[in-house]
Amino acid sequence: MADTTSAPRHIRLTSHSGGVGAPPIHWGAATPAERGPIVGTTTTRAHRNVIGTHSGSYSVYRALAVAAGALKREHRADLTNTSPTDLIGPYPQWRDGSKMVSLDPWGAAVADVYRAEIAAGLDIRPTIAVTKAHVILPEVIEAVQKGRLKPDGKLLTANGAAMVTKAAIEPVWYLPGVAKRFGCSETDLRRVLFEETGGMYPELVTRSDLEVFLPPIGGQTIYIFGNPRDLATPEVELTARVHDECNGSDVFGSDICTCRPYLTHAIEECIRGAQPKEAGGRGGVGLIAYSRKEGRALGEVTKFLVYNARKRQVGGDTADQYFARTECVAGVQDMRFQELMPDVLHWLGVRKIHRLVSMSNMKYDAITGSGIEVGERVNIPDELIPADARVEMDAKMAAGYFTPGAVPDAERLKQTKGRGLS
Amino acid sequence: MADTTSAPRHIRLTSHSGGVGAPPIHWGAATPAERGPIVGTTTTRAHRNVIGTHSGSYSVYRALAVAAGALKREHRADLTNTSPTDLIGPYPQWRDGSKMVSLDPWGAAVADVYRAEIAAGLDIRPTIAVTKAHVILPEVIEAVQKGRLKPDGKLLTANGAAMVTKAAIEPVWYLPGVAKRFGCSETDLRRVLFEETGGMYPELVTRSDLEVFLPPIGGQTIYIFGNPRDLATPEVELTARVHDECNGSDVFGSDICTCRPYLTHAIEECIRGAQPKEAGGRGGVGLIAYSRKEGRALGEVTKFLVYNARKRQVGGDTADQYFARTECVAGVQDMRFQELMPDVLHWLGVRKIHRLVSMSNMKYDAITGSGIEVGERVNIPDELIPADARVEMDAKMAAGYFTPGAVPDAERLKQTKGRGLS
Repeated sequence: MADTTSAPRHIRLTSHSGGVGAPPIHWGAATPAERGPIVGTTTTRAHRNVIGTHSGSYSVYRALAVAAGALKREHRADLTNTSPTDLIGPYPQWRDGSKMVSLDPWGAAVADVYRAEIAAGLDIRPTIAVTKAHVILPEVIEAVQKGRLKPDGKLLTANGAAMVTKAAIEPVWYLPGVAKRFGCSETDLRRVLFEETGGMYPELVTRSDLEVFLPPIGGQTIYIFGNPRDLATPEVELTARVHDECNGSDVFGSDICTCRPYLTHAIEECIRGAQPKEAGGRGGVGLIAYSRKEGRALGEVTKFLVYNARKRQVGGDTADQYFARTECVAGVQDMRFQELMPDVLHWLGVRKIHRLVSMSNMKYDAITGSGIEVGERVNIPDELIPADARVEMDAKMAAGYFTPGAVPDAERLKQTKGRGLS
Repeated sequence: MADTTSAPRHIRLTSHSGGVGAPPIHWGAATPAERGPIVGTTTTRAHRNVIGTHSGSYSVYRALAVAAGALKREHRADLTNTSPTDLIGPYPQWRDGSKMVSLDPWGAAVADVYRAEIAAGLDIRPTIAVTKAHVILPEVIEAVQKGRLKPDGKLLTANGAAMVTKAAIEPVWYLPGVAKRFGCSETDLRRVLFEETGGMYPELVTRSDLEVFLPPIGGQTIYIFGNPRDLATPEVELTARVHDECNGSDVFGSDICTCRPYLTHAIEECIRGAQPKEAGGRGGVGLIAYSRKEGRALGEVTKFLVYNARKRQVGGDTADQYFARTECVAGVQDMRFQELMPDVLHWLGVRKIHRLVSMSNMKYDAITGSGIEVGERVNIPDELIPADARVEMDAKMAAGYFTPGAVPDAERLKQTKGRGLS
């Protein structure tokens, strides 16, 4: 039932039957027509075939815009000229419903592959957008100035700008597949998602026929250096990093962790990896996948609480207590759950990462466990580790993170100490 | 009713009566005891006095942790040693329920001010965390190397590290106050928040007795350069910027906008503003407030769609069409709604911003409209504007954003053109 009036209306708390106009979703079907479009519109409820709505968290701001009278609730996006700058896929992985359970592979192409459905009145929105950009990082400019990178005028300009194709990706969760990844039943997953969020989306437990959930969380952004289609060609050397957001370091350069140095080191490796050999490059392709998982997906408030607990504990901020302090506050050491992370790699058709710029065993295990081969592992050079981040590095190496060097022993973990608070 | 068993339980979709153990909230009351604690726990439902739960979006990851068996649902944070490194407030603004409607002023101090309630069994969690950090930005190091900043050994070290106090702040919305800010009724706000999110939290419409909402959106982070208490002293010169997240520029240095250059320019101004006069500083205090409002709070997918539409339109990416393209895709030019932004300034006791590093009229109007005096407005120096960002700058100046120079006329807006996509 279309509802575009502003007159008082009956509020339906939960739909208990599928709308007659809602197209079915067959997750993992070979063609977009068989798979069916994802419809998360808030304007025509009967067309909806998912739980939740588009834009992740930003649906709350969309609601404010309607409340403030700035946005008409019936607005539909005019998708003219918005289509992807680069065609991604389709790849064989797209036809395997188990390879991707947290994004919609057809999400960038909806204006094209669901043209008829949109013309017929379905409000189908892109969950992925692909564009091109010039990115200019001070650390890359420094690499040029110091001769570590040589501008080639194509992938890297003389002033240090790198050419990229980038894509923003919103989460689209196929609940049966997500449950499988976490080793629990779909019923348990639905119940816990409902209860542990304080009661978000009752349809999680009342509408088992709706198998797709658009969760109100941050998504991912990928940056491709070189030709996007080369990502799907195992013969072309791929340098890649999967990076989890850390605003305090990525933006503000906090010296307590290695996040931004690791990221900019990886970008330098990606640029060099993609540049032609005659410019000192490796003639391959580069990829950064950036996920919104602030503070190990615990959020920044918890992260700062842990910083204080680390710095104030008896004996100071030592590597041997690094994980224990997080667990005291948060109940777990890490909530990032790399189980869903490889999905974006399969979307891009990746079958082999020749050089993985990461020391995380959780990331490595998730990637290789999903069937992608990993060649060399590249870690951050020692000279890029900020002074106060040594605690984190030693604790992680002792916990099983990859290191080409010696693993710190118990004595060293006690001795590796960060600054105090004062 | 405490529920800490893992046995099958009845799922209650919506609570229709307040729990007997839930403490009342009197928003804006003078003391924390009279105001009452914010209880968003998921363990003991009867104690809850809000809609939603803690950690913003990250409650979804918390649910995954429980589903995966990694986190016990009854876990309570051990807050030992986590208390704020710097005392913020209380300030007179805290006793005025209308000055802050989107954060809990007592949110950093819960372990202290609600000690008795926590000991009695209430699961009260901090919604704000305050810590100290050293931040090292390449742009600040460059400012030192070029002599624009002089290390003083205290606020700014010889290697370019700046000392900060920082705080992470989760949103805590007092719905009657939020409705007032947006000029709508509380009933309309609740209904629209529910409907336009696709049915998130039915309690928004069924539980008018619950007036506080913890929305699953990103929060804010503040960075203070100098003494935090000086922020509340109008006699001390305050340099400030309120910055909205732009991952593509803030982290990756995209040249299509001025976000990171504006931010790093503001950080440089904040450092200089806080440094002692003998080190070339202004002897004041500096503040950056960083809000998670990616892509004008439209999210990054919409942002990238708009980039493509701008670059591909007939006539190219011209300043005169800058806002129109966003409106076609998103229905509005901007969804950031600065109406809630000044809250964090009132939390810090700010009464006067002597130097506001921003050209946004929306931010300026929101700040001054909330009763805070603004002296000088400082905009980004021309030499820091990336080549492709001229379109945005000219469009904004023509739309009424502050500029000390000439406002571009219609002819210039047509001529200011960005790069194409190829």
